[in-house]
Parts: sequence; C-alpha cells; structure tokens
Amino acid sequence: MPKAPVLIDLKFPDREKVVSAMSGFFRNRTVIDLAEPENAKRDLSDCRYAVLWKPEADLFQRAPNLDVLFSGGAGVDKVLALEGLPDVPLVRFVDPTLTRRMSEYVVLQCLAHLRRAGLYARQQRDRIWREWPQPEAADVTIGVMGLGALGLDAAEKLKVMGFKVIGWSRSQKTIDGMETFDQDGLDVFLAKTDILVGLLPLTGQTTGLFNLSLFSKLKADGPLGGPVFINAGRGGSQVELDIVAALKDRVLAAVSLDVFETEPLSAESLLWDCENAILTPHIAADTDVEALFAHVEYQIERFEAGEALQHTVDRQSGY
Amino acid sequence: MPKAPVLIDLKFPDREKVVSAMSGFFRNRTVIDLAEPENAKRDLSDCRYAVLWKPEADLFQRAPNLDVLFSGGAGVDKVLALEGLPDVPLVRFVDPTLTRRMSEYVVLQCLAHLRRAGLYARQQRDRIWREWPQPEAADVTIGVMGLGALGLDAAEKLKVMGFKVIGWSRSQKTIDGMETFDQDGLDVFLAKTDILVGLLPLTGQTTGLFNLSLFSKLKADGPLGGPVFINAGRGGSQVELDIVAALKDRVLAAVSLDVFETEPLSAESLLWDCENAILTPHIAADTDVEALFAHVEYQIERFEAGEALQHTVDRQSGY
Ligand SMILES: NC(=O)c1ccc[n+]([C@@H]2O[C@H](COP(=O)([O-])OP(=O)(O)OC[C@H]3O[C@@H](n4cnc5c(N)ncnc54)[C@H](OP(=O)(O)O)[C@@H]3O)[C@@H](O)[C@H]2O)c1
Ligand SMILES: NC(=O)c1ccc[n+]([C@@H]2O[C@H](COP(=O)([O-])OP(=O)(O)OC[C@H]3O[C@@H](n4cnc5c(N)ncnc54)[C@H](OP(=O)(O)O)[C@@H]3O)[C@@H](O)[C@H]2O)c1
Repeated sequence: MPKAPVLIDLKFPDREKVVSAMSGFFRNRTVIDLAEPENAKRDLSDCRYAVLWKPEADLFQRAPNLDVLFSGGAGVDKVLALEGLPDVPLVRFVDPTLTRRMSEYVVLQCLAHLRRAGLYARQQRDRIWREWPQPEAADVTIGVMGLGALGLDAAEKLKVMGFKVIGWSRSQKTIDGMETFDQDGLDVFLAKTDILVGLLPLTGQTTGLFNLSLFSKLKADGPLGGPVFINAGRGGSQVELDIVAALKDRVLAAVSLDVFETEPLSAESLLWDCENAILTPHIAADTDVEALFAHVEYQIERFEAGEALQHTVDRQSGY
Repeated sequence: MPKAPVLIDLKFPDREKVVSAMSGFFRNRTVIDLAEPENAKRDLSDCRYAVLWKPEADLFQRAPNLDVLFSGGAGVDKVLALEGLPDVPLVRFVDPTLTRRMSEYVVLQCLAHLRRAGLYARQQRDRIWREWPQPEAADVTIGVMGLGALGLDAAEKLKVMGFKVIGWSRSQKTIDGMETFDQDGLDVFLAKTDILVGLLPLTGQTTGLFNLSLFSKLKADGPLGGPVFINAGRGGSQVELDIVAALKDRVLAAVSLDVFETEPLSAESLLWDCENAILTPHIAADTDVEALFAHVEYQIERFEAGEALQHTVDRQSGY
C-alpha cells in the first residue's frame, strides 16, 4: 500500500531552503508542496498530514481528511486561530537546533545589557573613551518566565555564564539548582528579578501579561540601574505602549524585543526610537527546515507504527 | 614582631573603591597607600610588599627592600617595563571574578557577531524589518589564542553555547574535547578559524602578531561572510593599520577590540569609523579590588609561612 501523502504549506522567507530541504525527506511518500503552481487545483482529499506556517485560508476545506497537523514553528497561537481547524492532533516543533538558537539570543541579550553594550556603542560613535563600573553576572538575577523546552535550556546556559537564575511556569516545577515559582508566586518572583526573560506561549492567560503593572513589580534597585525586559516568546503577551512609557519613566532601564503585537513592526511604532531598546525582526530562533522535516518524518513514523505522537498541543491550555 | 608593611600604588579609575576595599584587608599590618598625601615623603624602606598598577617612577628607589611585587592586573607587560624593577618575585593577578568577566566579554562578542547584532542595530536605526539567514553556533569554529587562566574558561563557555572551539598556545596542550595547536601548527589553526579570539599576554613574541599576514590565513569561506577578530589580550599584539585595511578589503568581516596599541585610543584613530568594529575602553575584565586584596593577602600569608608563591611571572618568557 502506498504511503499517505504529506501536504506542505510553509510561508517561510527562504523559499529555496524549503525546496532543497524537501528533497532529502519523505522518501516513498508523495509530497504536495502548495507553493508549486501545479498543485493550485490538485485534489487534496488523500492528504493525511499537513506541515503548516501561515497556510492558505481554504486549506482545511480542500484537505478534509487530515489525521495530524504539524506546526512549522514552536508557537502554535496562529495555527490554533485558523478558521476551520479540524479536531485532530496538532504537533508543534521542538528541536535542539531551535532551542540552541533561542539560547544564543537570550544569552546575547542578557550579556549585552549586563556589559552595557548600548552605552559603549554610543561612546564609540562619539569617540569617547570612558570606563563604567561593571557588576558581574553573579550580581544579577535573571527571572525566566516560561520553563518549557526553550526556557529551561536558556536558564541552564545563563547559569553557566554566572548569572543567578530563577524561573516561573504555570505548574510548579522542581529543578535542581534553580528557585522556581508558579502563578501564586508571581509577585515574589518579580521582586527578585533584575532581568526578566519572557519565553511564554501566547494563550488567553498570557495575552497582555507584560504590562506596566507587572514591570513596576520588578526589582528596582539592582545593579543595572533598573530592571531589563527581554521578550522572545510572543508579541501578544506584551503591551507596547506600556513598554514605551516604562522606558521613558525609567520603570524599565532597557528592553530587548524580538516579537511584537503586530509583525512586521509598523514604521510608526514609538519603540524604534527608544534609546535602550534592542529590536530584532522575530529572528531569535528560526526554524531550521531540515530539522523540521526530520521531526515531522519521525513523528509520522511513530504515528503509523501506532505509537503516541510527541509535542502535541493541548487545545484547552492553548500550548 | 610586627608584620612587615605593604605598599599600595594603584592608579585605578575608581579611587573610592580602592579605599573602601583596603579597610577590609591587611589587618595587623601597616598599609601605606601612596595616593594619600601624608605618604608623599614617608620613608618606605620598611616595606616588603608592593601592590602596583602604573606606579610612581621613583617607587623602587624609595622602597629598596621589597621582597615581593604584586601586579594589580592579570597582564604584567607594563610592570616588567618599569625602570629599576628589582629582581624579586612578581605575582600577577589571577582570580575567578576576573576570569568570569573576561568570559562574559568573549561570549558576548562571539554571539554578537554570530547573530549579526551590528547589522540588526543598523536596520533598527533605519526602521527596517528584514530577516537574514542565521547559521547556528555549531556551524562556527572559534580559535582561541592563549590557553591560560582566561583562554581556557572562555573556551569552555563558548563550547557550552554550541560553538566549535580550537586552541593555540606556546607549549602544546592536551585538553579534553578541544583540538589544540602550538607554534608549529599556527597556519593549520588559522585555516580552521572563523572567529579568532586573542587572549595572549604581551611579550616579545606576541608583539605585532595580529597583522595582515596572519588575518589573511584565517578561514575565508566560513558562514559569517568572512573571518572575525576579537582581541582582549593586549593592544601591542595587534597592528591597527592592518586591522583597518583588513576590514576595508574584507580580509576581516568584523572585529571586537578591547585593547589598543596606545590607550586611551586616540580620537584620530581610523578604527572609530570602521562599521564592523566594536570598540570598548579596556573593560573586558576589570580587576575587582576586593578580590585583588584577598589574593595579595593570601599570597603574603603563603610567603611568610615559607610556602611557594603562586602565579609568579617568568621574566624570561615575559608572562
Ligand atoms: N522569537 C522566536 O523566534 C521564537 C521561536 C520559537 C518559539 N518562540 C515562542 O516561545 C514559546 C515557548 O516555547 P517552548 O518550546 O519553550 O514552549 P513550551 O515547551 O510549551 O513551554 C511553555 C512554558 O510556558 C509556561 N506557561 C504557559 N502558559 C503559562 C501561564 N499562563 N502562566 C505561566 N506559565 C505558563 C509553561 O508552563 P508549564 O511548564 O507549567 O506547562 C511552560 O513552562 C513558544 O510558544 C513560541 O511562541 C519564539
Ligand atoms: N582586556 C582586559 O581587560 C584584560 C584583563 C585581564 C587580562 N588581560 C590580558 O589577558 C592576558 C592573558 O591572561 P591569562 O591570565 O590567561 O594569562 P596566562 O594564564 O599567563 O596565559 C597566557 C597564555 O598565552 C600563551 N602564550 C604566551 N605567549 C605565547 C606565545 N608567544 N605563543 C603562543 N602562546 C603564547 C600561554 O601559553 P602556555 O600555556 O604554553 O604558557 C598561555 O596559554 C594577560 O596577559 C593580559 O594581558 C586583558
């Protein structure tokens, strides 16, 4: 019996990479790449698997017999909001290359704020040679919000760099060498935190969570001249007007934002001009397409062998 | 018998910190702080220990009975060049806080270049939302030149961040999980290196080592669009006109320099305007004064108990 076809609808910026990666996977299985014009009208009723990132609006009408959906990224908020989403397992992307890239981003941003990279860059522009007092990482507490695949790895690497690290998650966790908090401990957690790192999924509960009220609960008298906020989870969790106000009033000393309420960030956003803001275009942890296909192929193998799928999303909690 | 006095001549920028740190150390021992006006004319012939950073020119004439000299920093090139330097043991500063700060700097710079921090900062200035291909740390080889107290710790942390790391030192070393090279292997080492990290002491052998000829031997076809050079050892090891030329001709894609041939860096230097250069005013690893005094106190204890001093400098090799 021929293997059931897999449908690919990935609106990734680097189309070439998707095409070249595809050739190395799904041997002996029909691959229907919706970006190919020849597939524009193809009957998709034989497709049982779909790998999705910003899919076509009529996809689920055209492919009504899907057994498993695969998200092209770690976050599934956009997929869950799709119209006509069938009630079948949704598998998100979890992979060491993604995790390592996110930790690169988080460690880079924490060190940049610790070592006053922005201040020294401004001095360089003005040809000023001036040294500033320098706390070391051990003087700084980083509070990681979200202790999933990404948060845990980032926390581990921040510890290796010498930072004190504490963590917050929905369910209380016990982690060796790290003080952890859950919902009830939020205020205590914030009061200990010099650098807040957001690695949360976007759900009903996390929407708008990073607002002025939360920022004002962070440790204000730490060694960095004020609290720092870093968000690499989802922009919907932050209130950008509050961030602008907090930076202006020194409720926050600095921010690094990789995600935004609306992406691309509008040219009109007040964030662009905030001096102590490091903005990046949602590049903290790009999906490596080869790793994605390897993960999808492996999960399909499990599924067809009757084993349980991994990294499935809980519709109730939204992640 | 009263303990022999210790002489302090530390021209550190943060004078207050020196004063406050001093109060916590050398109990039951006279401390003669040469920065105090009352000591300007004091007889120093009873002093047996001196802690030095940019000392007065007539110091060794005024204090002819020193038994041990302590450098206020990890590098001793300046101390070794002092006129009238007595032929007594010179102890350099080696300490975990210094080492950790250096690794913060090195990891920060390597990640900044890996993650194109400069490019994204320029895009931010111009309100441009644009994503670029992103190799991960595992695709990049960092060559660490100098595998001493600082180089070894930096190498270890770079490995945790996912980089491939190779090392180079004067004597051949065997280090678990790291390919290492000595003088004879220099060209092979350079040909494998995407990011070159200089953590060498300034000696006759290392003076002018980082020049155009060396840069042109680095791996040119790596994933960063060209080799990157980072120097946090001593500026005397680099040829700055060669660095400017190498950046202009894309022999180097980018540099991070914390040290310079002449410090402070002259306002006329061409380096200030190089787009892919990150310049800092010799702040990679500041001496923590409390840690310095703790180290000096401990070494004096050892010395007075007849034990061997640690971290003594070999005059022949110059480090
Ligand atoms: N910027 C980028 O390039 C990029 C790249 C990849 C991913 N991301 C984002 O990063 C997010 C996290 O990824 P992940 O793989 O680490 O996810 P994950 O493994 O599902 O972990 C999510 C973590 O957040 C916690 N959490 C969820 N809702 C919470 C709430 N209401 N209150 C407190 N804690 C809550 C979870 O708590 P429990 O442990 O109790 O379940 C868990 O610790 C993704 O959802 C995605 O949006 C961004
Ligand atoms: N920028 C800053 O803020 C800052 C702060 C502190 C220190 N530093 C600089 O960093 C330097 C290194 O410090 P450290 O504590 O790591 O020194 P270290 O422990 O003495 O190590 C020096 C390393 O360099 C190697 N080396 C020396 N001469 C060499 C040569 N000619 N060829 C090849 N390798 C050579 C040594 O080789 P062997 O192992 O074979 O001996 C050793 O591995 C200091 O000397 C200082 O100048 C800068």
